[in-house]
Amino acid sequence: MENCIFCKIIKGDIPCTKVYEDENILSFLDIAPANKGHCLIMPKEHYETIIDAPEEIINYSLKVTKKIARAMSSSLGNEGFNVLINSYKVAGQLVPHLHIHLIPRFNGDGINLNWRPRKYKDKEIIDFAEKIKKFL
Amino acid sequence: MENCIFCKIIKGDIPCTKVYEDENILSFLDIAPANKGHCLIMPKEHYETIIDAPEEIINYSLKVTKKIARAMSSSLGNEGFNVLINSYKVAGQLVPHLHIHLIPRFNGDGINLNWRPRKYKDKEIIDFAEKIKKFL
Repeated sequence: MENCIFCKIIKGDIPCTKVYEDENILSFLDIAPANKGHCLIMPKEHYETIIDAPEEIINYSLKVTKKIARAMSSSLGNEGFNVLINSYKVAGQLVPHLHIHLIPRFNGDGINLNWRPRKYKDKEIIDFAEKIKKFL
Repeated sequence: MENCIFCKIIKGDIPCTKVYEDENILSFLDIAPANKGHCLIMPKEHYETIIDAPEEIINYSLKVTKKIARAMSSSLGNEGFNVLINSYKVAGQLVPHLHIHLIPRFNGDGINLNWRPRKYKDKEIIDFAEKIKKFL
């Protein structure tokens, strides 16, 4: 897609540090990583989010993510990892081309992907579940 | 699995606020949500992480996650969402039963799932890619 920075990287017009590539997927190191070794995994075809991408593309992207997660742990020695998919700008998606963050985690690495929990009042939690269920 | 709190919820021994259930998957509202409406989606069978779970379980879990994400946006009006899978304790996995966080996001909700970027020195980024690639 024109003007998509990830499409330009996939096309080879902008350089990247590749970790994995096949016919359908490209993975390279995030240049602004949470931890060194942080990979981005994306389908070569342009889809904005997981909502837009077909099932087989999502499934295959996850399969490759698992493969890289295993290689990452074996090579970097991280004891865990986060898989994060931000969908739409409000959720922190900086590039509107579907991509999966794979972040290696180490004890005491100071990364905080947690949240300060919100509190439901009284039976409000039931109302939220009912609202969502109405559209399922 | 004995002593697994999510297995107990799945079995019905501990209550939850269900959003979705079928033969293989249960989804309920996180009681310590990042935002109200934050769902957990999990396979009923016990697997610790995505590394342990078979492909078809992961694929189906993602399919249900997408389904709930659509219903969530329609009902709660969130403009985006995060899908987060923490693997192992060091990555913030509090319950060692594979689960997917689905977090509705709103403008100005104050949630920070970002990170302060680390910096690679000189050609260090190439070394990291090479290390991972050796195990692929």
